[in-house]
Amino acid sequence: MKATIYKGDKTFGVIEKEIEQPLNGEVRIKVAYSGVCGTDVHIYHGMMDKRVEMPQTIGHEMSGTIDAVGEGVTGYAVGDKVVVRPLDDRKVKASDKGFNHICEDLKFIGIDSPGSMQQYWNVPAFTLHKLQETTDLKLAALIEPLSVATHDVRRSGLVKGETAVVLGGGPIGLLVAMVAKEVGAQVIISEVNPTRIAKAKELGFDAVSPLEVDLVEYVKSKTENKRADVVFEVAGVQPALDIMCEVAGICGRIVMVAIHGVKKEVDLFKFFWKELSLIGARVYEKEDYEKSIQLITANELPFEQMITDVQPLSNIQTVFENIDKNPDGLKVLMDCQL
Amino acid sequence: MKATIYKGDKTFGVIEKEIEQPLNGEVRIKVAYSGVCGTDVHIYHGMMDKRVEMPQTIGHEMSGTIDAVGEGVTGYAVGDKVVVRPLDDRKVKASDKGFNHICEDLKFIGIDSPGSMQQYWNVPAFTLHKLQETTDLKLAALIEPLSVATHDVRRSGLVKGETAVVLGGGPIGLLVAMVAKEVGAQVIISEVNPTRIAKAKELGFDAVSPLEVDLVEYVKSKTENKRADVVFEVAGVQPALDIMCEVAGICGRIVMVAIHGVKKEVDLFKFFWKELSLIGARVYEKEDYEKSIQLITANELPFEQMITDVQPLSNIQTVFENIDKNPDGLKVLMDCQL
Repeated sequence: MKATIYKGDKTFGVIEKEIEQPLNGEVRIKVAYSGVCGTDVHIYHGMMDKRVEMPQTIGHEMSGTIDAVGEGVTGYAVGDKVVVRPLDDRKVKASDKGFNHICEDLKFIGIDSPGSMQQYWNVPAFTLHKLQETTDLKLAALIEPLSVATHDVRRSGLVKGETAVVLGGGPIGLLVAMVAKEVGAQVIISEVNPTRIAKAKELGFDAVSPLEVDLVEYVKSKTENKRADVVFEVAGVQPALDIMCEVAGICGRIVMVAIHGVKKEVDLFKFFWKELSLIGARVYEKEDYEKSIQLITANELPFEQMITDVQPLSNIQTVFENIDKNPDGLKVLMDCQL
Repeated sequence: MKATIYKGDKTFGVIEKEIEQPLNGEVRIKVAYSGVCGTDVHIYHGMMDKRVEMPQTIGHEMSGTIDAVGEGVTGYAVGDKVVVRPLDDRKVKASDKGFNHICEDLKFIGIDSPGSMQQYWNVPAFTLHKLQETTDLKLAALIEPLSVATHDVRRSGLVKGETAVVLGGGPIGLLVAMVAKEVGAQVIISEVNPTRIAKAKELGFDAVSPLEVDLVEYVKSKTENKRADVVFEVAGVQPALDIMCEVAGICGRIVMVAIHGVKKEVDLFKFFWKELSLIGARVYEKEDYEKSIQLITANELPFEQMITDVQPLSNIQTVFENIDKNPDGLKVLMDCQL
């Protein structure tokens, strides 16, 4: 079988190795597609070299079919279409208070242990979610990032008739926007990249550049001055942190989707004055996956337009190099059988 | 009648004026006690000169009895013991979404209009809450600040069996701690002032100095490593903002009680990593007042020990000067009939 490995120093290799039998409690998946996540790009940039044991096969946004079933696994059969929820919570403790998905000793499969950017992938069966016969495997590779979005929206408590402002129109921002719209909310995307604004509009969204319009006034004009009920901070930059407190209306909820590696300035006075809430959100839970599987299988949202490129697994080096060169692309998938 | 006025430049005056008839919809209150709030001290320091129209009678933490009832007022009679919820929300708009207590055009009575530091005070009847015959009027002057605390605790969603860490053991911190304990939570107070630590202990609280013990380790040792379910940030200083994210456990809620006038650094990564929530809280709502009235009337918490001085209204200048000189004091009341 073919497997890719990250070797450090912005370098991937493609190797041939033996197909392994699944251990007790594991299944072997014939990986169909593996998407490239922002985290994978971080790894490629060497930002996570302390955490990733090299050489390592990375990747966690995937779809596939079960190829072999290990001992002790029930409920799954060869040929089943599946996705993996790549959270290994086997070291959960009482002090995690039942929040297994972000438990202190969580291992993220594809970062802390081998991932999906290979032809066959052995994983513990407890990470599996079964797809429908009819679920498209290409779209199914979006289930993991879509579950980030369904989790974010669920954490926000967004309901029909409310207004959500999404700061940042990259892949996660667009998926959050889709889920928010599906809930029945009015959605406004704020994005500075003109290509991404055009893409967001193509996907049917109200999208504006905060460099060209006064975002607060724009949102006020669309909400009878109420401003946003929910703000999703997906941009990860200081101007987004500044504007999130302005664009949120009274008692507004702000979901912190972006990862801010260093301490940042926040207008806490606005939190007091308008009784704002800031809600941290990380990965997803079982129900978020179930919701995403339902959305992907129904295929009523413009998911296909999210996939801007599909490349053979063996092109992995070029794939990562091109992502760096092309900030306008959205989701790139790798066909793991090519 | 006697009234005090703030004249700017750290100066109060005491004047004699005519007792006024209550207008339509108003009552006249014979003010019993008026407590000095941190906000009053801010006003004295000239920090709010842009907002306060001088000369102005300030004050909003009070108790009293109805002395005259204006036309159109029903449900109140002369002699009724009352407190005032000093929020004038008559300019509420649809864009305030029903959050009247913090509506955009809210007027705070005692800051934006005349307050309670006078012998008789005319207020709109809609601001009144009736007390029991048995409610002690001295303790009742604590109902306003106690309602800040009941609001904070209600916003936190704190429930029995959880652990709350209160950062800052001043008057509001102690009231928050009392309400949290009354809910059935384990309460730990973090405070740097040794006199306040001693006072907190005297009131029956577990209180430590973060300068002397490792607060995070201390809280872990008291919670089987779970850390705090809820953190109340009442200190208003950067070290409190730094430690609030550390001391909060997985999915912890942090209530922002302190007022941070300028943008501050916040560890947003921790919000992501542990799925923390930051909850802004400002003033109070009707139900918070009702809860506070019930607690004060029952008098089962150490409210009396919160009152460290009672002075005649005519001593107002010395009262404010002494508050500046004595950071160890808690609540100072003015007897408005002396």
